[in-house]
Amino acid sequence: MLNGRRPYKQTMIAQRRNRLSQILESMQLDGLVLNAGPSFTYFTGLHFHLMERPVLFFILPGRTPVMILPELERAKLDQLDFEAEIFLYPDNPAHWPGIFSQACSHIGPAVARLGIEPGQMRMLEHGYLAQAAADLDFVNAEQVIAQIRSTKDESETELMGKAVAIAQQAISATLPLIKIGMSERELAAELVVQLLRHGSQASLPFAPIVSSGPNGANPHAAPSDKKIAGGELLIIDWGAAWQGYVSDLTRTFAVAHVEKEFAHIHELVRLANRAGRKAAGPAIACQAVDRAARSVIEEAGYGACFTHRTGHGIGMQCHESPYIHEGNEQLLQPGMTFTVEPGIYLKGRGGVRIEDDVIITGDGAASLSDYPRHLSVVG
Amino acid sequence: MLNGRRPYKQTMIAQRRNRLSQILESMQLDGLVLNAGPSFTYFTGLHFHLMERPVLFFILPGRTPVMILPELERAKLDQLDFEAEIFLYPDNPAHWPGIFSQACSHIGPAVARLGIEPGQMRMLEHGYLAQAAADLDFVNAEQVIAQIRSTKDESETELMGKAVAIAQQAISATLPLIKIGMSERELAAELVVQLLRHGSQASLPFAPIVSSGPNGANPHAAPSDKKIAGGELLIIDWGAAWQGYVSDLTRTFAVAHVEKEFAHIHELVRLANRAGRKAAGPAIACQAVDRAARSVIEEAGYGACFTHRTGHGIGMQCHESPYIHEGNEQLLQPGMTFTVEPGIYLKGRGGVRIEDDVIITGDGAASLSDYPRHLSVVG
Repeated sequence: MLNGRRPYKQTMIAQRRNRLSQILESMQLDGLVLNAGPSFTYFTGLHFHLMERPVLFFILPGRTPVMILPELERAKLDQLDFEAEIFLYPDNPAHWPGIFSQACSHIGPAVARLGIEPGQMRMLEHGYLAQAAADLDFVNAEQVIAQIRSTKDESETELMGKAVAIAQQAISATLPLIKIGMSERELAAELVVQLLRHGSQASLPFAPIVSSGPNGANPHAAPSDKKIAGGELLIIDWGAAWQGYVSDLTRTFAVAHVEKEFAHIHELVRLANRAGRKAAGPAIACQAVDRAARSVIEEAGYGACFTHRTGHGIGMQCHESPYIHEGNEQLLQPGMTFTVEPGIYLKGRGGVRIEDDVIITGDGAASLSDYPRHLSVVG
Repeated sequence: MLNGRRPYKQTMIAQRRNRLSQILESMQLDGLVLNAGPSFTYFTGLHFHLMERPVLFFILPGRTPVMILPELERAKLDQLDFEAEIFLYPDNPAHWPGIFSQACSHIGPAVARLGIEPGQMRMLEHGYLAQAAADLDFVNAEQVIAQIRSTKDESETELMGKAVAIAQQAISATLPLIKIGMSERELAAELVVQLLRHGSQASLPFAPIVSSGPNGANPHAAPSDKKIAGGELLIIDWGAAWQGYVSDLTRTFAVAHVEKEFAHIHELVRLANRAGRKAAGPAIACQAVDRAARSVIEEAGYGACFTHRTGHGIGMQCHESPYIHEGNEQLLQPGMTFTVEPGIYLKGRGGVRIEDDVIITGDGAASLSDYPRHLSVVG
């Protein structure tokens, strides 16, 4: 054992690895290899940025785990609260293949089938591994990891609740600052300031979206120098990060005054959001939540204007399993957390989106976010 | 031609693709495929986040480029100022393989060898491509892309200069706020607020490092709840982002008062930083810059306490080519931009790092950053 033991954390993280190991064995996988990213942090308790230097962690059921990392990051090992075989490499990339070979020799030829996360693992890490152990067979283990990570334990939902609370406090502090003639970019900067003032980690889950008027018709618009004008719809899509967990909310406001159709589509989206949240519960398919939200909008004749899925899982990542879209028959389970975010987008005119972060409970779903959803006027 | 033409940008981005195409042909590559990331933005003018949905751009010398992206992102195509064959897929992943097959059929079997960036391309994108076109051969084209991107044009260095200016203004505004007893995390939050107030993009290049006393002995420490105390060294490593280009600076301060050895190692690091900057110039090897900085520290007997390379390239990414370390014989060229950031780390006591952003000129190197490097006392 290395220093820095924290019994609670050790137990929790060891439990996660044990749970994973059991599933790996049932899948006839000899292990799993993770590069820097949320799953790496989830199973090790250590945080590394995804950089040009590969950092890898091997979970090998029944054996001591293995880690390959730069010497530069050696100090982080003080936080490691479990035993691991460590392979350190120097800055000069010429030495990296040798270190990878040593690590792969240590792991040995009995490890032939290794699970990976294709959405996280790069050709970079894959290349070094394939060079060091040509016979290694890599298998998509994304579902296995998602299965474990998507069901949050109490400590995780507590952190997510805090990330939601910070986001809600930040928007409350920002709204009074909105003025007609302010640019989207200025408003976004104010919101970020308020997120940090209210305690968010500096590394936000994403840069807030502030899109006004016609810009709001693009669901993924970036804040621009366009000035916010009276009569426009104003979409704000923002989130906070707290101890590695994130929130992701959206509300749509009316600037100064609101035309009839805008008020109508806002009300439709509010009802669609509610329908999605009400439909969610244990053993309900993801697509049923999408259908519940979408049908409200379709029945009102705006189906073609709801151009994206109803939601995505959320936790350590802003987008993770489960995904809430037509065709996803995955059944929701207690502890799963995801967004419900229907929208209506009118090209050239504006858009509405209302997004909450929801958790599946024992008998239904609860919203972690409770910021008012009715149309309010700002500016 | 689609709408949204901007002649200057069009020319610049088309020139970049033309330059790349020539090199690809000389490497006997049939093309290059990029996923979402800085190189994608550099060659298309469009910005996409790296998400669970693959976004790919194919540069095919002598042919119309090809793009595969989610329908959700269709609105971004309005900003495209060149002709491209577009393949859009819906939210449901069940439809993605079919769209990838269509795109690969369009590209055709004559395209057999495709360059990729292994540090950016994930197994996710690779998997869809390999499934759609089993015979495609992927070749590491990182060097080619780095060669083009590392030599900045005037418009790029202007944006980098602005990113440096914002960072320097932000630290000037933050220093008066430092108080003994303030936590590293609180100081980091203030610095982020000032970065945004002075105009940085909300998506910072990295969360600032604020590490005080013993925490400073870890070059990559994250800001903690530790309170800043008198007599400690205080490392601040921070940067701003401006129109897609970033800065990355470090200064080390003394809190309230400074002990003799701390002042000594600060002076050594200042001289090492200067030696590194002075050694840099056209046709100088990267490792010569590392050696120049390192030898100052080694000759003073602290060589073992300088535990990382001297620097890294900087531009659209905070870490990119050229890397300034022993063993890198790559020759610097006018327009290349990189950090010079020697450090001395005393385990259990503290650390010093001084980092500037440097550009190679016609006959030497100039620092984009000019924030004072001498040891100043704060708190």
